[in-house]
Amino acid sequence: MWDKMKEEKKPVAAQKEPAQKITFNIDKEKNFSEWFTEIIRAAELADLRNNIKGFIVFQPWSVLCMEAMYGYYERDLQKRGHKPYWFPALIPEKNLKQESAHVEGFVPEVFWVTETGAGEKLEEKYALRPTSETVFYPMFSIWIRSYKDLPFRTYQRAQVWRYETKATRPFLRSREFYWIETHNGFATKEEAYQNVLGDMETAERVMHCIFGVPFLFFERPQWDKFAGADSTFAADTIMPDGKIIQQPSTHMLGTHFAKAFNEKFTNEEGKEELVYNTCYGPAISRIFASVVAFHGDNKGLRFPFEIAPLQIIIVPIAGHKNPEVKKTAEKLRNDLFDAGYRVEIDSSDKMPGEKFFFWEMKGVPLRLELGPKELEKKEIVLYRRDNGKKKTIKLSSLEKEIAVNSKELSENLKKQADETFKNIVHDAADKKELEKIVNCRGFARANFCSTELDGAHCAEIVEKEIGATVRGRRIDKQEQAFGSKKCIICGKPAKVVVYIGKQY
Amino acid sequence: MWDKMKEEKKPVAAQKEPAQKITFNIDKEKNFSEWFTEIIRAAELADLRNNIKGFIVFQPWSVLCMEAMYGYYERDLQKRGHKPYWFPALIPEKNLKQESAHVEGFVPEVFWVTETGAGEKLEEKYALRPTSETVFYPMFSIWIRSYKDLPFRTYQRAQVWRYETKATRPFLRSREFYWIETHNGFATKEEAYQNVLGDMETAERVMHCIFGVPFLFFERPQWDKFAGADSTFAADTIMPDGKIIQQPSTHMLGTHFAKAFNEKFTNEEGKEELVYNTCYGPAISRIFASVVAFHGDNKGLRFPFEIAPLQIIIVPIAGHKNPEVKKTAEKLRNDLFDAGYRVEIDSSDKMPGEKFFFWEMKGVPLRLELGPKELEKKEIVLYRRDNGKKKTIKLSSLEKEIAVNSKELSENLKKQADETFKNIVHDAADKKELEKIVNCRGFARANFCSTELDGAHCAEIVEKEIGATVRGRRIDKQEQAFGSKKCIICGKPAKVVVYIGKQY
Repeated sequence: MWDKMKEEKKPVAAQKEPAQKITFNIDKEKNFSEWFTEIIRAAELADLRNNIKGFIVFQPWSVLCMEAMYGYYERDLQKRGHKPYWFPALIPEKNLKQESAHVEGFVPEVFWVTETGAGEKLEEKYALRPTSETVFYPMFSIWIRSYKDLPFRTYQRAQVWRYETKATRPFLRSREFYWIETHNGFATKEEAYQNVLGDMETAERVMHCIFGVPFLFFERPQWDKFAGADSTFAADTIMPDGKIIQQPSTHMLGTHFAKAFNEKFTNEEGKEELVYNTCYGPAISRIFASVVAFHGDNKGLRFPFEIAPLQIIIVPIAGHKNPEVKKTAEKLRNDLFDAGYRVEIDSSDKMPGEKFFFWEMKGVPLRLELGPKELEKKEIVLYRRDNGKKKTIKLSSLEKEIAVNSKELSENLKKQADETFKNIVHDAADKKELEKIVNCRGFARANFCSTELDGAHCAEIVEKEIGATVRGRRIDKQEQAFGSKKCIICGKPAKVVVYIGKQY
Repeated sequence: MWDKMKEEKKPVAAQKEPAQKITFNIDKEKNFSEWFTEIIRAAELADLRNNIKGFIVFQPWSVLCMEAMYGYYERDLQKRGHKPYWFPALIPEKNLKQESAHVEGFVPEVFWVTETGAGEKLEEKYALRPTSETVFYPMFSIWIRSYKDLPFRTYQRAQVWRYETKATRPFLRSREFYWIETHNGFATKEEAYQNVLGDMETAERVMHCIFGVPFLFFERPQWDKFAGADSTFAADTIMPDGKIIQQPSTHMLGTHFAKAFNEKFTNEEGKEELVYNTCYGPAISRIFASVVAFHGDNKGLRFPFEIAPLQIIIVPIAGHKNPEVKKTAEKLRNDLFDAGYRVEIDSSDKMPGEKFFFWEMKGVPLRLELGPKELEKKEIVLYRRDNGKKKTIKLSSLEKEIAVNSKELSENLKKQADETFKNIVHDAADKKELEKIVNCRGFARANFCSTELDGAHCAEIVEKEIGATVRGRRIDKQEQAFGSKKCIICGKPAKVVVYIGKQY
């Protein structure tokens, strides 16, 4: 169903389309592609009907969630000492070409600004930022003078543009996406490595513990590292159809950029040394796709409470007929709003059942139902989107119940996601098993000759014959070759254990 | 001194420069240009030493403040029913050319994306967003079907790019700046006008009441309206040297864009009508310049507490020698951080006096000084940046004192700004008086023949002979021609009273 999602050229003023259905019922596990395509449309996460190929319009229901996601990521980075910057979105061609591996990796994907006004040529071409190493590090060369300036941790929230030639997919791969990029300088390789480990801990605290998205972190093989890095560490998670998707990656850049951009500092002995750089790039719009994919169910979206675009929906039953119900609902909304919640009342003239379906599809964590019957007893009905359970509670204990239930809800979604993520690794003893595992779901774990460049040939065979990629080796544990202890492809002694999967 | 601020071309890896001075003492009123240039450098608000002409690097001390400013603006807009979107930064040439007045106004300033990769020409040129009417309104034509969909209020936080040919000045005019743009649809002209009034109220609540920046709102003359609008309403404020600077403007777009992009809705009688649009563009990076300019004093920056990049700085006296002082300072920091404040400890090995100067220059609202003497008495010294007053308070009442003093500080800064803004309007009876007033400070109030297009000739004379611009007529009150009741330029009967000033 992915072809449905490819943006087609439309006239500037597109045709009006029939109103969207409000009931949603698609088997997520069986028909994930259809589910994902349809939920983007039904919940109004993004609109693909603009006329810019490979670009989408992010709608409030995704933007509000992604803004909350930015908040959690930024706070964690700031706590670790990262300071926020806003760097220019344009990068002079000469900057981009200063680091040779980097230019090779990124230039093919660059959008170039070459003209202004009525077609006047610019003196030099500017790249629309595909990533910002080549503007941050020239400034590092000015800002960093002494060991006292180190560590130097920076970040920016920004969008980046890459001229993707592969088919684009909303939130997963598009020509414009939203991310955070950190760029950092350290006195030693060891400190740089500690920061890379810190990035993985941030991913654990934020992406896993708050957003509820589980992952495995791998050191990527040398043939698959970031353009300009010594080594790349990346989180991989899975989609409901069992395919792998890369999430945040963090990179040991060594001194490549320091050499290219003259980043030097004076050490405690007064000698000049090169700075070690690391960078980290959590793509918020792509992590959002994993939030949607992991937590959604056949009825639609489900959001962890902390990042839900709307946390509480109040549905007055017979509200427009009963002024007391309306008044109480409004008081509740105001009280909860003032207490810091994202809360709304649905006072449309739809039937209650229709409203219920709609907000369940939209993934609002908690629903409060208030009718004359409840009002009389000073009670309210609390519905939880994660487990579909309703209970009647006293109005006087509402805030306490919200606090408890919102916490339980987020924990429950995380637990369910962790459950899904269990058993996604299976050992493969030979190519046949490898093929069977990667075609089914998740990762095959296999002996491999090498993740240095001498292993690239075997990786090509995996790619050509099985259509899968070598994701790398685990970092959280040292794994020894098992069974035959021979490379699953070439049969030479295995130096490493790798994980292999089919990726989006 | 503005020429100092023009960015020069620098090699990619610029020369290291000597460390910055930490004491700051420039007479803001007398030498405002120098003051502004130097405070940007000393407080590290922005760095102009990157090699992209007309672009600057926004540093943490401005970004943290502008992020807080975004927060207040967005919350106010959301409360009024605006929903957040992220639209593509690229706009196809054909969209931009769809509305004729709009294209005329904006195309001369556009950066064009024409190539990708190794120089492959794109099928069509894309404009880097100079403003987003021509991508929002085509989508409105899809989203808006019926009167039930109206009002339809949207916004995005985004940066825009304009190829300025005038000299650029950090925060005030550059080729890339940060703003919010709202785009809205209404069923009637009257509802559209109510929304424009709402935009002015937002400016009052946020820019004046929270950021402490006073302004006057004018309806701009017809020759000075937004490209594609029926009429433009803009806030003007002044800089310490008495020159006028434009702040947020809001526009009645009428049905121009609705016609160009086919925005229609079915009214209650089932008939098709055109949508009325309005848009509003508070430029956060430019409002930041006014925050800096209004509140700063000869010692450096001063920030309202709510938007200060750092709200509280703790300076331990003899901290590194006294472990008890250090421990208490750290406990304080953690407690205040958990209470939601932006707070840090200065535990550098500088002398206390040096630290005091530094954080005063940086404009941190409150400073807490803690030494062994205070610790013994369970006291702490609280210093306020707005009035330079110190007082010793009990540690046990710290949170209460912070709450009270932060509120007083922000109110005091606003009061001082309002005081500065008083008496900036003087009546001019003839050209000679007009010239004298605008060369001195603020606005001249004068009779004028017309703010319709037939007044454009007189406005040209004002511009050529006096170097000033007609800012428009007040909206908050109906003003009648006074004195001679004749136009200050052509002597014809005056239809309006206008405000005239020299602008940045």
